[in-house]
Amino acid sequence: MTDSVAASHAKGKCATDKIFGANAAAVKDAAQYGNDKVVNATIGALMDDQEKLACIPTVEKVFRELPINNIISYAPIAGSPAFLKAFINLAFADHKPDAYIEAIATSGGSGAIHHTIWNYSDAGDTILTSDWYWGPYKVLCQDSLRKLDTYTLFDEEQKFNIAAFSAKVKELLSKQTNVVVIINTPAHNPTGFSLTDSDWDNVLALFKECAQDTEKRIIPLIDVAYIDYAGEKNACRAFLKKLGGLPTNIFPILACSMSKGFTMYGQRTGAMIGVSSSKEVIEEFKNINQYTSRATWSNITHSAMNLLSTIYQDKELLAQTELERDALYALIRNRADIFMSEAKEANLKMLPYIAGFFLTIPADQPDAVCEKLHEDHIFAVPLAKGIRIAVCAVSSSKIKGMAAKIAKAIQAVAAS
Amino acid sequence: MTDSVAASHAKGKCATDKIFGANAAAVKDAAQYGNDKVVNATIGALMDDQEKLACIPTVEKVFRELPINNIISYAPIAGSPAFLKAFINLAFADHKPDAYIEAIATSGGSGAIHHTIWNYSDAGDTILTSDWYWGPYKVLCQDSLRKLDTYTLFDEEQKFNIAAFSAKVKELLSKQTNVVVIINTPAHNPTGFSLTDSDWDNVLALFKECAQDTEKRIIPLIDVAYIDYAGEKNACRAFLKKLGGLPTNIFPILACSMSKGFTMYGQRTGAMIGVSSSKEVIEEFKNINQYTSRATWSNITHSAMNLLSTIYQDKELLAQTELERDALYALIRNRADIFMSEAKEANLKMLPYIAGFFLTIPADQPDAVCEKLHEDHIFAVPLAKGIRIAVCAVSSSKIKGMAAKIAKAIQAVAAS
Repeated sequence: MTDSVAASHAKGKCATDKIFGANAAAVKDAAQYGNDKVVNATIGALMDDQEKLACIPTVEKVFRELPINNIISYAPIAGSPAFLKAFINLAFADHKPDAYIEAIATSGGSGAIHHTIWNYSDAGDTILTSDWYWGPYKVLCQDSLRKLDTYTLFDEEQKFNIAAFSAKVKELLSKQTNVVVIINTPAHNPTGFSLTDSDWDNVLALFKECAQDTEKRIIPLIDVAYIDYAGEKNACRAFLKKLGGLPTNIFPILACSMSKGFTMYGQRTGAMIGVSSSKEVIEEFKNINQYTSRATWSNITHSAMNLLSTIYQDKELLAQTELERDALYALIRNRADIFMSEAKEANLKMLPYIAGFFLTIPADQPDAVCEKLHEDHIFAVPLAKGIRIAVCAVSSSKIKGMAAKIAKAIQAVAAS
Repeated sequence: MTDSVAASHAKGKCATDKIFGANAAAVKDAAQYGNDKVVNATIGALMDDQEKLACIPTVEKVFRELPINNIISYAPIAGSPAFLKAFINLAFADHKPDAYIEAIATSGGSGAIHHTIWNYSDAGDTILTSDWYWGPYKVLCQDSLRKLDTYTLFDEEQKFNIAAFSAKVKELLSKQTNVVVIINTPAHNPTGFSLTDSDWDNVLALFKECAQDTEKRIIPLIDVAYIDYAGEKNACRAFLKKLGGLPTNIFPILACSMSKGFTMYGQRTGAMIGVSSSKEVIEEFKNINQYTSRATWSNITHSAMNLLSTIYQDKELLAQTELERDALYALIRNRADIFMSEAKEANLKMLPYIAGFFLTIPADQPDAVCEKLHEDHIFAVPLAKGIRIAVCAVSSSKIKGMAAKIAKAIQAVAAS
């Protein structure tokens, strides 16, 4: 018999992380053959073309100059007011919806997802996301004793599959009072797909139709972790304006993170932003999520909050930060362009990439293909139905030739 | 009708924070009458005698010199191995128990409490702590859909009330499989009490007696947030050695924090340390708590982890840090000594203070007494049955005279 002292619901939990495993294999290969020989396309962070973790220079400068009191003191449980105000304004840019809007500081985007699942779904409920999804969504659901179901993200034309989406939303609403729908856009992880503004019109039309049953509530949880690498600032935020004027039983929550937009992954700072036509829903949002913050992490890293509000309050610092971030974005853009053009030449099928840190190659035996790629010293993350390539992490010189090698590996695995 | 979209279990949650309210009143009073006139004994952080938030100088120096990569990169979900090793060794000093020991990084001590409640008690279970307790324990239980019950901490001689403790532990074990018992020692918040080594012998004898029923599990959650301000380093850790060699269905978990010991409150870094005679229990501990970390905050602030492991790996830096911390401890010690000696003169009854950030005056109408003290520009936190004085936050010159004024206020309220 095995010794166990965990509570019944907690027994046997164990996360096997494919990303970690793939990265470990790449690190080992690099130790043996040298860094310059190895293509590590597993890492979910932005590396410059020297393959060094990139930090936006102005962000580093401001961080280094923070008074010690801004680093060591406790932040308020909900987050510092200056930080929350700044993050709301940065999240929406020129497209702030006409609605009540409030924010609560969270431990990156993950923390925002945690709170939304915990406070806006019931035990045993099913949360919905697309069939291509960031793996930890499932862990977030399961640890909270919720389930995760998926709809088929793409139709036959590789467009957003509104039919599949509608069917699943309606199915869940027939069984549950609250349905949390996680939509990771723009620059979806792992595909790089973004819903178009007209996709959003269709999604919101569906939600409004469903919301006519006033007993039901729809909670669109919009994970915008990659929004700062999704195209022109205001263009990729235009859909946010549409979140105004919704019925009160549709309650969109944005999961925002400083990890990518401010290259501050390890500082664990983000926010959940609620958008509602009802002042009461927004007051409830502040109260219940602040309560859950007190009961999970207490408060959030103060240094990153003060960093963000310092930058936001100084127009020059903000402009400089955005300029430097755009330069990093151009790096990724260039890498993805190289890959896409070579994929076309190599007849390598890709999922529709618009922008962001990752792109995905659909494949039948992803683990075998990734294994085969190790012969070429290429390391990528096998997903359930494809292979994730972190264009954020591979220098443009190493991107060259990858598509052809992946095409060859897929053929070799299919033939074997 | 009020608009609400929260899940049924989440409705109506709202934390009214008496500490925040009391502090706000002090800040307002200081704005009107000047800082030098106002005694703000509400703050739970160490202020130097100039009433500036204290930072251990070596901690600041090392933090300022961290390479940017150590600040911005993600830490592993469980915490960096160097950090975990360092924190375990610092937690136990010379009194590491003979047992399997592992740690998981958490968001301060609060995060360790969150994970322990979530993974080692069942929904609806009751968690046990003493009747004098840090208010957020209740929020932590309630948000996780657990209850909190208390035992009477002190007997008639103001000693640890083992009889009351035993009765409650046995009562809960008769109803539940798992019982999580939160013991905040040494230097308990809010009283400053510490269990003696012989108190610990009695507690562990009780646990062993109860553990003879092998269907039951006892999870002592030892909150050691204030252990670095609890007396001589090894003397106040001697009890930890006793956690070795216990039956496998007694599973002590330490909740550790860098907030106080490293004056890094706002960096939100701590750890939960599990101690077991069973390798399997410790493997389960790593697996299930890492899983919950992924599902709540994902990973913990990397800068503070690298700060701690840097200090730990350099004997001189560590010695210097401890020396500087001892100087801060001496400040609190001196303030508490002044207060206790004046309390004796003023015939003011206190709960037994051994060490730590806070001391407590029992009182019948705590809110009224705190209100009355505002006339003397003294601000303290009203508890259910007393008044908490943050000796960590009040300069020694302002401590002088406080005890007499509190005694007078209590008399005035009693007479009114």
